[in-house]
Amino acid sequence: MVKPWKELDRQVLVSTRIFNLEKRRSRSETSGTEVDFLVLDTPEWVNVAAVTPENRLVLIRQYRAGSDKIAVEIPGGACEPGEDPAAAAARELLEETGYEAESYTVLGEVRPNPAFMNNRCFTVLAMNARSTGRTDPDEDEEIEPFEMPLEDFAGLLREGHIDHALVWAAYLHMLFHGLLPPP
Amino acid sequence: MVKPWKELDRQVLVSTRIFNLEKRRSRSETSGTEVDFLVLDTPEWVNVAAVTPENRLVLIRQYRAGSDKIAVEIPGGACEPGEDPAAAAARELLEETGYEAESYTVLGEVRPNPAFMNNRCFTVLAMNARSTGRTDPDEDEEIEPFEMPLEDFAGLLREGHIDHALVWAAYLHMLFHGLLPPP
Repeated sequence: MVKPWKELDRQVLVSTRIFNLEKRRSRSETSGTEVDFLVLDTPEWVNVAAVTPENRLVLIRQYRAGSDKIAVEIPGGACEPGEDPAAAAARELLEETGYEAESYTVLGEVRPNPAFMNNRCFTVLAMNARSTGRTDPDEDEEIEPFEMPLEDFAGLLREGHIDHALVWAAYLHMLFHGLLPPP
Repeated sequence: MVKPWKELDRQVLVSTRIFNLEKRRSRSETSGTEVDFLVLDTPEWVNVAAVTPENRLVLIRQYRAGSDKIAVEIPGGACEPGEDPAAAAARELLEETGYEAESYTVLGEVRPNPAFMNNRCFTVLAMNARSTGRTDPDEDEEIEPFEMPLEDFAGLLREGHIDHALVWAAYLHMLFHGLLPPP
Protein backbone atom coordinates (compact mmCIF):
# COMPACT_ATOMS: atom_id res chain seq x y z
CA MET A 1 0.00 0.00 0.00
CA VAL A 2 1.52 3.35 -1.03
CA LYS A 3 1.74 5.97 1.73
CA PRO A 4 2.10 9.76 1.78
CA TRP A 5 5.68 11.00 2.23
CA LYS A 6 6.58 13.06 5.27
CA GLU A 7 7.78 16.61 4.64
CA LEU A 8 10.95 17.40 6.60
CA ASP A 9 11.88 20.84 5.34
CA ARG A 10 10.67 23.47 2.92
CA GLN A 11 12.69 26.13 1.15
CA VAL A 12 11.47 28.82 -1.29
CA LEU A 13 13.86 28.86 -4.25
CA VAL A 14 12.18 31.67 -6.16
CA SER A 15 9.20 33.86 -5.42
CA THR A 16 7.35 35.23 -8.46
CA ARG A 17 4.16 37.09 -9.24
CA ILE A 18 2.31 33.91 -10.21
CA PHE A 19 3.83 31.22 -7.96
CA ASN A 20 6.62 30.33 -5.56
CA LEU A 21 9.02 27.57 -6.51
CA GLU A 22 9.77 25.46 -3.44
CA LYS A 23 12.06 22.58 -2.60
CA ARG A 24 10.45 20.18 -0.14
CA ARG A 25 12.75 17.69 1.52
CA SER A 26 10.60 14.61 2.14
CA ARG A 27 11.02 11.11 3.49
CA SER A 28 9.33 7.96 2.31
CA GLU A 29 7.44 6.27 5.13
CA THR A 30 7.93 2.99 3.26
CA SER A 31 11.65 2.94 2.43
CA GLY A 32 13.09 5.79 4.51
CA THR A 33 14.53 7.33 1.31
CA GLU A 34 14.86 11.13 1.43
CA VAL A 35 14.43 13.25 -1.70
CA ASP A 36 13.83 16.89 -2.64
CA PHE A 37 10.48 17.37 -4.36
CA LEU A 38 10.03 20.56 -6.41
CA VAL A 39 6.65 22.17 -5.84
CA LEU A 40 5.08 25.25 -7.42
CA ASP A 41 3.03 26.89 -4.68
CA THR A 42 0.31 28.35 -6.85
CA PRO A 43 -3.04 30.09 -6.25
CA GLU A 44 -6.26 28.28 -7.13
CA TRP A 45 -7.33 28.89 -10.73
CA VAL A 46 -10.69 29.24 -12.44
CA ASN A 47 -11.89 28.63 -15.97
CA VAL A 48 -15.16 30.22 -17.02
CA ALA A 49 -17.64 28.51 -19.33
CA ALA A 50 -19.74 31.57 -20.15
CA VAL A 51 -22.87 30.92 -22.20
CA THR A 52 -25.00 33.67 -23.74
CA PRO A 53 -28.82 33.70 -23.86
CA GLU A 54 -28.41 32.58 -27.51
CA ASN A 55 -26.51 29.46 -26.32
CA ARG A 56 -23.17 30.75 -27.57
CA LEU A 57 -19.87 30.15 -25.77
CA VAL A 58 -17.60 33.12 -24.92
CA LEU A 59 -14.03 32.49 -26.11
CA ILE A 60 -10.86 34.56 -26.11
CA ARG A 61 -7.91 34.80 -28.41
CA GLN A 62 -4.61 35.90 -26.85
CA TYR A 63 -0.84 35.51 -27.02
CA ARG A 64 0.57 32.89 -24.65
CA ALA A 65 4.19 33.23 -23.64
CA GLY A 66 4.60 29.53 -22.74
CA SER A 67 3.67 28.24 -26.17
CA ASP A 68 4.78 31.49 -27.91
CA LYS A 69 1.57 31.26 -29.95
CA ILE A 70 -1.84 32.88 -30.25
CA ALA A 71 -4.23 30.61 -28.37
CA VAL A 72 -8.01 30.18 -28.29
CA GLU A 73 -9.25 29.51 -24.77
CA ILE A 74 -12.13 30.25 -22.44
CA PRO A 75 -11.60 33.10 -19.96
CA GLY A 76 -9.91 32.34 -16.66
CA GLY A 77 -7.21 33.21 -14.21
CA ALA A 78 -6.02 32.97 -10.63
CA CYS A 79 -8.17 33.44 -7.55
CA GLU A 80 -7.13 36.30 -5.27
CA PRO A 81 -6.30 35.29 -1.68
CA GLY A 82 -9.57 34.33 0.03
CA GLU A 83 -11.64 34.82 -3.14
CA ASP A 84 -14.07 32.01 -3.89
CA PRO A 85 -14.05 30.46 -7.37
CA ALA A 86 -17.43 31.87 -8.44
CA ALA A 87 -16.35 35.41 -7.52
CA ALA A 88 -13.00 34.95 -9.26
CA ALA A 89 -14.83 33.70 -12.35
CA ALA A 90 -17.09 36.76 -12.42
CA ARG A 91 -14.09 39.06 -12.02
CA GLU A 92 -11.95 37.35 -14.67
CA LEU A 93 -14.84 37.11 -17.14
CA LEU A 94 -15.51 40.84 -16.81
CA GLU A 95 -11.82 41.87 -16.93
CA GLU A 96 -10.94 39.70 -19.92
CA THR A 97 -14.11 39.88 -22.03
CA GLY A 98 -16.38 42.59 -20.63
CA TYR A 99 -19.16 40.01 -20.16
CA GLU A 100 -21.37 39.75 -17.08
CA ALA A 101 -23.55 36.73 -16.33
CA GLU A 102 -26.70 36.18 -14.28
CA SER A 103 -25.29 33.22 -12.35
CA TYR A 104 -21.93 31.59 -11.60
CA THR A 105 -21.94 27.91 -10.64
CA VAL A 106 -18.91 25.71 -9.91
CA LEU A 107 -19.28 22.60 -12.08
CA GLY A 108 -16.22 20.78 -10.75
CA GLU A 109 -12.48 20.89 -10.28
CA VAL A 110 -9.29 19.25 -11.45
CA ARG A 111 -5.68 19.50 -10.41
CA PRO A 112 -3.54 21.08 -13.15
CA ASN A 113 -0.63 18.87 -12.13
CA PRO A 114 -0.60 17.16 -8.71
CA ALA A 115 2.98 15.96 -9.32
CA PHE A 116 4.45 19.41 -8.73
CA MET A 117 1.65 21.96 -8.37
CA ASN A 118 -0.47 22.29 -5.23
CA ASN A 119 -3.45 24.07 -6.72
CA ARG A 120 -6.80 23.21 -8.21
CA CYS A 121 -8.59 24.61 -11.24
CA PHE A 122 -12.35 25.10 -10.96
CA THR A 123 -14.71 25.16 -13.93
CA VAL A 124 -17.38 27.80 -13.38
CA LEU A 125 -20.52 27.91 -15.52
CA ALA A 126 -21.63 31.51 -16.16
CA MET A 127 -25.18 31.52 -17.53
CA ASN A 128 -26.90 34.26 -19.54
CA ALA A 129 -23.64 36.10 -20.11
CA ARG A 130 -23.90 39.41 -21.95
CA SER A 131 -21.28 41.89 -23.14
CA THR A 132 -21.04 45.22 -21.31
CA GLY A 133 -18.73 46.51 -24.02
CA ARG A 134 -15.95 47.27 -21.50
CA THR A 135 -12.85 45.20 -20.68
CA ASP A 136 -10.03 45.71 -18.19
CA PRO A 137 -7.18 43.35 -19.02
CA ASP A 138 -3.84 43.28 -17.15
CA GLU A 139 -0.94 45.09 -18.85
CA ASP A 140 0.51 41.80 -20.11
CA GLU A 141 -2.83 40.74 -21.63
CA GLU A 142 -4.13 41.64 -25.09
CA ILE A 143 -7.36 39.78 -25.42
CA GLU A 144 -9.86 39.45 -28.23
CA PRO A 145 -13.20 38.02 -27.04
CA PHE A 146 -15.55 36.31 -29.47
CA GLU A 147 -18.50 33.93 -29.45
CA MET A 148 -19.20 30.57 -31.07
CA PRO A 149 -22.21 28.26 -30.98
CA LEU A 150 -21.85 26.02 -27.93
CA GLU A 151 -22.23 22.92 -30.09
CA ASP A 152 -18.99 23.81 -31.91
CA PHE A 153 -16.92 23.45 -28.68
CA ALA A 154 -16.12 19.75 -29.22
CA GLY A 155 -14.90 20.40 -32.75
CA LEU A 156 -12.47 23.09 -31.58
CA LEU A 157 -10.87 20.57 -29.21
CA ARG A 158 -10.94 17.62 -31.57
CA GLU A 159 -9.37 19.57 -34.41
CA GLY A 160 -6.64 21.07 -32.22
CA HIS A 161 -7.82 24.69 -32.36
CA ILE A 162 -8.07 24.60 -28.56
CA ASP A 163 -5.22 22.68 -26.95
CA HIS A 164 -5.11 24.00 -23.36
CA ALA A 165 -5.59 20.95 -21.10
CA LEU A 166 -7.59 22.95 -18.55
CA VAL A 167 -10.06 24.03 -21.23
CA TRP A 168 -10.39 20.36 -22.14
CA ALA A 169 -11.26 19.68 -18.49
CA ALA A 170 -13.87 22.47 -18.60
CA TYR A 171 -15.42 20.88 -21.69
CA LEU A 172 -15.59 17.56 -19.86
CA HIS A 173 -17.20 19.14 -16.79
CA MET A 174 -19.89 20.54 -19.09
CA LEU A 175 -20.30 17.16 -20.79
CA PHE A 176 -20.61 15.32 -17.45
CA HIS A 177 -23.30 17.82 -16.40
CA GLY A 178 -25.30 17.20 -19.56
CA LEU A 179 -24.73 20.75 -20.83
CA LEU A 180 -23.34 19.52 -24.15
CA PRO A 181 -24.36 16.71 -26.49
CA PRO A 182 -22.03 13.64 -26.47
CA PRO A 183 -19.23 14.09 -29.01
CA MET B 1 -6.20 41.35 -34.18
CA VAL B 2 -3.96 40.03 -31.40
CA LYS B 3 -0.31 39.48 -32.34
CA PRO B 4 2.53 37.41 -30.90
CA TRP B 5 4.87 39.33 -28.60
CA LYS B 6 8.52 39.73 -29.52
CA GLU B 7 11.05 38.19 -27.15
CA LEU B 8 13.87 40.63 -26.32
CA ASP B 9 15.85 38.75 -23.69
CA ARG B 10 15.83 35.43 -21.85
CA GLN B 11 17.29 34.64 -18.44
CA VAL B 12 17.29 31.30 -16.60
CA LEU B 13 16.27 32.01 -12.99
CA VAL B 14 16.53 28.41 -11.73
CA SER B 15 17.57 25.19 -13.38
CA THR B 16 16.05 22.01 -11.92
CA ARG B 17 15.86 18.33 -12.71
CA ILE B 18 12.36 18.66 -14.22
CA PHE B 19 12.34 22.14 -15.78
CA ASN B 20 14.12 25.49 -16.06
CA LEU B 21 12.36 28.59 -14.81
CA GLU B 22 13.01 31.44 -17.24
CA LYS B 23 12.21 35.13 -17.37
CA ARG B 24 11.51 36.27 -20.92
CA ARG B 25 11.51 40.03 -21.49
CA SER B 26 9.00 40.61 -24.28
CA ARG B 27 7.47 43.50 -26.13
CA SER B 28 3.93 43.85 -27.39
CA GLU B 29 3.85 44.49 -31.13
CA THR B 30 0.52 46.25 -30.58
CA SER B 31 1.19 48.65 -27.71
CA GLY B 32 4.97 48.61 -27.35
CA THR B 33 4.57 47.61 -23.66
CA GLU B 34 7.47 45.54 -22.28
CA VAL B 35 6.89 42.89 -19.61
CA ASP B 36 8.73 39.90 -18.12
CA PHE B 37 6.90 36.65 -18.82
CA LEU B 38 7.76 33.67 -16.60
CA VAL B 39 8.14 30.46 -18.55
CA LEU B 40 8.84 26.90 -17.39
CA ASP B 41 11.03 25.35 -20.05
CA THR B 42 9.84 21.78 -19.70
CA PRO B 43 10.36 18.52 -21.64
CA GLU B 44 7.46 17.06 -23.60
CA TRP B 45 5.33 14.72 -21.51
CA VAL B 46 3.40 11.52 -22.27
CA ASN B 47 0.39 9.88 -20.69
CA VAL B 48 -0.20 6.22 -21.45
CA ALA B 49 -3.66 4.73 -21.92
CA ALA B 50 -2.68 1.07 -21.62
CA VAL B 51 -5.44 -1.43 -22.32
CA THR B 52 -5.12 -5.16 -21.61
CA PRO B 53 -6.45 -7.95 -23.88
CA GLU B 54 -9.37 -8.18 -21.43
CA ASN B 55 -10.22 -4.50 -22.13
CA ARG B 56 -8.99 -3.34 -18.75
CA LEU B 57 -7.22 -0.02 -18.17
CA VAL B 58 -3.84 0.06 -16.39
CA LEU B 59 -3.84 2.59 -13.54
CA ILE B 60 -1.34 3.56 -10.88
CA ARG B 61 -1.62 4.76 -7.34
CA GLN B 62 1.20 6.96 -6.03
CA TYR B 63 2.06 9.82 -3.71
CA ARG B 64 2.11 13.24 -5.38
CA ALA B 65 4.18 15.95 -3.75
CA GLY B 66 2.24 18.82 -5.36
CA SER B 67 -1.12 17.81 -3.93
CA ASP B 68 0.49 16.02 -0.94
CA LYS B 69 -1.99 13.20 -1.55
CA ILE B 70 -2.14 9.67 -2.90
CA ALA B 71 -3.39 9.98 -6.49
CA VAL B 72 -4.88 7.60 -9.02
CA GLU B 73 -3.58 8.28 -12.51
CA ILE B 74 -2.54 6.56 -15.71
CA PRO B 75 1.20 6.00 -16.20
CA GLY B 76 3.25 8.77 -17.74
CA GLY B 77 6.27 10.98 -17.52
CA ALA B 78 8.71 13.15 -19.39
CA CYS B 79 10.26 12.36 -22.77
CA GLU B 80 14.04 12.09 -22.79
CA PRO B 81 15.83 14.51 -25.17
CA GLY B 82 15.11 13.35 -28.72
CA GLU B 83 12.83 10.51 -27.60
CA ASP B 84 9.57 10.26 -29.50
CA PRO B 85 6.31 10.08 -27.54
CA ALA B 86 5.55 6.44 -28.41
CA ALA B 87 9.00 5.33 -27.20
CA ALA B 88 8.68 7.42 -24.05
CA ALA B 89 5.29 5.86 -23.40
CA ALA B 90 6.68 2.34 -23.74
CA ARG B 91 9.56 3.18 -21.39
CA GLU B 92 7.40 4.89 -18.76
CA LEU B 93 4.75 2.16 -18.88
CA LEU B 94 7.38 -0.52 -18.27
CA GLU B 95 9.24 1.43 -15.56
CA GLU B 96 6.14 2.40 -13.62
CA THR B 97 3.92 -0.66 -14.02
CA GLY B 98 5.97 -3.50 -15.51
CA TYR B 99 3.52 -3.73 -18.44
CA GLU B 100 4.51 -4.13 -22.08
CA ALA B 101 2.12 -3.55 -24.96
CA GLU B 102 1.95 -4.77 -28.56
CA SER B 103 1.50 -1.30 -30.05
CA TYR B 104 1.92 2.34 -29.04
CA THR B 105 -0.11 4.94 -30.95
CA VAL B 106 -0.24 8.69 -30.34
CA LEU B 107 -3.93 9.63 -30.05
CA GLY B 108 -3.39 13.36 -29.68
CA GLU B 109 -1.80 16.12 -27.68
CA VAL B 110 -2.66 19.02 -25.41
CA ARG B 111 -0.64 21.81 -23.83
CA PRO B 112 -0.51 21.43 -20.04
CA ASN B 113 -0.51 25.22 -19.69
CA PRO B 114 0.40 27.42 -22.67
CA ALA B 115 0.35 30.51 -20.42
CA PHE B 116 3.66 29.63 -18.78
CA MET B 117 4.78 26.18 -19.93
CA ASN B 118 6.26 25.52 -23.36
CA ASN B 119 5.64 21.79 -23.55
CA ARG B 120 2.99 19.44 -24.86
CA CYS B 121 1.54 16.28 -23.35
CA PHE B 122 0.83 13.38 -25.71
CA THR B 123 -1.75 10.70 -25.04
CA VAL B 124 -0.39 7.35 -26.22
CA LEU B 125 -2.67 4.32 -26.62
CA ALA B 126 -0.88 1.08 -25.65
CA MET B 127 -2.86 -1.91 -26.88
CA ASN B 128 -2.72 -5.48 -25.58
CA ALA B 129 -0.71 -4.48 -22.54
CA ARG B 130 0.41 -7.32 -20.29
CA SER B 131 2.32 -7.38 -17.02
CA THR B 132 5.89 -8.67 -17.05
CA GLY B 133 5.91 -8.72 -13.25
CA ARG B 134 8.92 -6.36 -13.08
CA THR B 135 8.95 -2.62 -12.41
CA ASP B 136 11.79 -0.09 -12.26
CA PRO B 137 10.53 3.13 -10.68
CA ASP B 138 12.75 6.16 -9.96
CA GLU B 139 13.91 6.57 -6.36
CA ASP B 140 11.26 9.20 -5.66
CA GLU B 141 8.48 6.97 -7.02
CA GLU B 142 6.55 4.32 -5.08
CA ILE B 143 3.96 3.08 -7.46
CA GLU B 144 1.15 0.56 -7.14
CA PRO B 145 -0.22 -0.53 -10.51
CA PHE B 146 -3.71 -1.98 -10.81
CA GLU B 147 -6.36 -2.59 -13.46
CA MET B 148 -9.99 -1.57 -13.85
CA PRO B 149 -12.58 -2.25 -16.54
CA LEU B 150 -12.16 0.40 -19.23
CA GLU B 151 -15.84 1.34 -18.98
CA ASP B 152 -15.27 2.48 -15.37
CA PHE B 153 -12.84 5.24 -16.51
CA ALA B 154 -15.55 7.94 -16.87
CA GLY B 155 -16.88 7.21 -13.37
CA LEU B 156 -13.43 7.69 -11.80
CA LEU B 157 -13.24 11.17 -13.33
CA ARG B 158 -16.82 12.16 -12.70
CA GLU B 159 -16.69 11.13 -9.03
CA GLY B 160 -13.37 12.89 -8.41
CA HIS B 161 -11.26 9.75 -7.84
CA ILE B 162 -9.05 10.89 -10.72
CA ASP B 163 -8.48 14.66 -10.73
CA HIS B 164 -5.28 15.12 -12.78
CA ALA B 165 -6.20 17.40 -15.70
CA LEU B 166 -3.86 15.58 -18.08
CA VAL B 167 -5.56 12.26 -17.36
CA TRP B 168 -8.85 13.99 -18.13
CA ALA B 169 -7.35 15.00 -21.49
CA ALA B 170 -6.29 11.40 -22.10
CA TYR B 171 -9.84 10.23 -21.40
CA LEU B 172 -11.13 12.78 -23.91
CA HIS B 173 -8.61 11.68 -26.55
CA MET B 174 -9.94 8.11 -26.13
CA LEU B 175 -13.53 9.35 -26.30
CA PHE B 176 -12.87 11.38 -29.48
CA HIS B 177 -11.31 8.27 -31.06
CA GLY B 178 -14.37 6.17 -30.25
CA LEU B 179 -12.44 3.97 -27.82
CA LEU B 180 -14.92 4.60 -25.02
CA PRO B 181 -18.72 4.86 -24.94
CA PRO B 182 -20.12 8.41 -24.55
CA PRO B 183 -20.46 9.30 -20.85
